[in-house]
Amino acid sequence: MYKAEITVKLKKGVLNPEGQTILKALNFLGFNEVNDVKSFKSIELEFDAENEEKAMERLTEMCNKLLANPVIHDYEIKLEKN
Amino acid sequence: MYKAEITVKLKKGVLNPEGQTILKALNFLGFNEVNDVKSFKSIELEFDAENEEKAMERLTEMCNKLLANPVIHDYEIKLEKN
Repeated sequence: MYKAEITVKLKKGVLNPEGQTILKALNFLGFNEVNDVKSFKSIELEFDAENEEKAMERLTEMCNKLLANPVIHDYEIKLEKN
Repeated sequence: MYKAEITVKLKKGVLNPEGQTILKALNFLGFNEVNDVKSFKSIELEFDAENEEKAMERLTEMCNKLLANPVIHDYEIKLEKN
């Protein structure tokens, strides 16, 4: 059994509306010292794999097919044996 | 200038509908080896603070006032000088 954490971030230059909304809200609440906010998603998976190489292969497939949009997202994979 | 990464996770026992939806979609796409999926949000902030102690104080305030719902969320703060 393996455990992976996949972090999906917007590529540089792609607008982060959620981050902008959080920034405005923080400033509105009096946290004016905040200059920039970016938000991103992380996904924790538990899954079976024969070995680490196969695990990374399948994770990359999962990212490309579902978890990340290659046009606007970059993703990072952290893998550990569970 | 400081940079912080705040990870906001659902507390143990709180249903993660987004994670369940991702799990079903992965299984539907043929990734049947995936047994569990949890999703969570991370927020990256750039802000000014006098020192590390004041920075942590303000970040905790931001989490309690806006970024995390203390009833259903746990949060972790990673802080670095920018």
